[in-house]
Amino acid sequence: MLKAPEHQVAGHLASDGKLGPLVDGSGRFYKPLQGGGRGSKELAFYETFSSDTRVPDHIRKFFPVFYGSQLLEASNGSGLCLHLVLQDIVSGCINPSIIDVKIGSRTWYPEASDDYIKKCLEKDARTTTVSLGFRIAGLQLYEGKESGFWKPGRKEVQSFTVDNVRSVMRRFVSSDSSIGNENPDCSFAPSIYGGSAGILEQLLELKAWFEDQTTYHFHSCSLLILFDKESVLKGSTPVAEVKLIDFAHVLEGKGVIDHNFLGGLCSLIKFVSDVLSESKESSIKADEESEKPHNCTNNGNCT
Amino acid sequence: MLKAPEHQVAGHLASDGKLGPLVDGSGRFYKPLQGGGRGSKELAFYETFSSDTRVPDHIRKFFPVFYGSQLLEASNGSGLCLHLVLQDIVSGCINPSIIDVKIGSRTWYPEASDDYIKKCLEKDARTTTVSLGFRIAGLQLYEGKESGFWKPGRKEVQSFTVDNVRSVMRRFVSSDSSIGNENPDCSFAPSIYGGSAGILEQLLELKAWFEDQTTYHFHSCSLLILFDKESVLKGSTPVAEVKLIDFAHVLEGKGVIDHNFLGGLCSLIKFVSDVLSESKESSIKADEESEKPHNCTNNGNCT
Repeated sequence: MLKAPEHQVAGHLASDGKLGPLVDGSGRFYKPLQGGGRGSKELAFYETFSSDTRVPDHIRKFFPVFYGSQLLEASNGSGLCLHLVLQDIVSGCINPSIIDVKIGSRTWYPEASDDYIKKCLEKDARTTTVSLGFRIAGLQLYEGKESGFWKPGRKEVQSFTVDNVRSVMRRFVSSDSSIGNENPDCSFAPSIYGGSAGILEQLLELKAWFEDQTTYHFHSCSLLILFDKESVLKGSTPVAEVKLIDFAHVLEGKGVIDHNFLGGLCSLIKFVSDVLSESKESSIKADEESEKPHNCTNNGNCT
Repeated sequence: MLKAPEHQVAGHLASDGKLGPLVDGSGRFYKPLQGGGRGSKELAFYETFSSDTRVPDHIRKFFPVFYGSQLLEASNGSGLCLHLVLQDIVSGCINPSIIDVKIGSRTWYPEASDDYIKKCLEKDARTTTVSLGFRIAGLQLYEGKESGFWKPGRKEVQSFTVDNVRSVMRRFVSSDSSIGNENPDCSFAPSIYGGSAGILEQLLELKAWFEDQTTYHFHSCSLLILFDKESVLKGSTPVAEVKLIDFAHVLEGKGVIDHNFLGGLCSLIKFVSDVLSESKESSIKADEESEKPHNCTNNGNCT
């Protein structure tokens, strides 16, 4: 019944015969508890968070629903292993396009060991984490029936520059998102990034919470943005979603806002709103072009 | 004519016979160009910034007016030295209370030398820079005619914890800000932090710019918050000001927002708005108390 998820874009994959998450095909996602205490920390986070009355209801939609924990056969055949039972956030999608963004200009925290800090610092400086306040940790963009998904490998994603990130954010909402296309049209930007239920509004809603909440500090946590291109192509209203995942390094806020997460989130918001503004500008230009009188002479001069 | 500024709260002091800034007593502040290329970088910043048409007019008030540069006798007697000629931002104040806040959860930047990064990282982790996204770099709080200013030394300020910072933010707007007072009244919070021209509104205005501007990254820059307690005590409308200073480490934004500064600024905003909310709550409580009927019996029970 359980199998490796089809649309996982980062982290360990059960499909490689490794220890990884599983899905049941009917809406539940089983994540084995990670080693080194991280798994039990993540379980503790979900337990605390799901019963925390300080978390406003409208913020809960950004987190996978937590159903508890369960002993299951591990995907690597190592026997029974405790798994988090979570909502499978892509279970309703046919061909979801997903970007996994690790938020924050640092993934370490002062309480961690020197070795851990050093490792994180090196990776943060090598990726766009320090420069952008976030890095893309994985992605898959659905290109269409023939070409399927563009899903670059881990090494390629880790070497993304600021320009690559900008390009991914544009291609995510373009009708032709194939890598050969230098000028993606961003034609889905108004419906996916824009609108009252779009990605930008959701990110702004999350931002407002992060400006105020001083309970949780989300280190090394991922923010997924996703939508099902199939539904856009079919003409039905696309559902664009923002979800937070990976809470093995959540610490108590102790009365201070999570400025590290918030700064990175604001940087991501700027990227999204830039793509949206550009797409609006280019659609206005296109409208103006189509409304222009075309009284042109043979030598190309228009009157 | 030129003398060491009376109200400098951080940085090198000319009054100690060292190289430091000077003021002319009629509104101008002369800052000697710092060594190691920092001075010429700061001069270049002021020159670029003052003629940058992308900077909105309402944002300029947060920066000292720049009058150019001038060769002057250095304060340490070392001869002629190039000075930045800037607006003396406290020249109109009699007894200004000032907090100098170094904004950002890191003061280093990837392009810096390894030694510089290491030095900054150590200091960032030792102070509240990493935990709060900012640290207090210096301050003076006017307590009154008799006791004058509370102006802790550099070492004391550098050892401030999160709780110390919270306490300073409360004492800054209290009628009795002396260190012995464990429960400062925050009675000036509504007029200094609050109101349409108060510190909070100014910080929010600055924040809105930082959410959008991708031109400048302000590393290791200071934000001053200041007001003249004398004018409050005299009953005249207090002028609360926010000013940015120290631009030796400003880098080009290259199309990315300054998420490091913005995150720290949001953290500071949360501290200021918390003090303001608490002061409003306690004033509502006080009002309710004073409106209660006091039909108490002898044993202390009220009806």
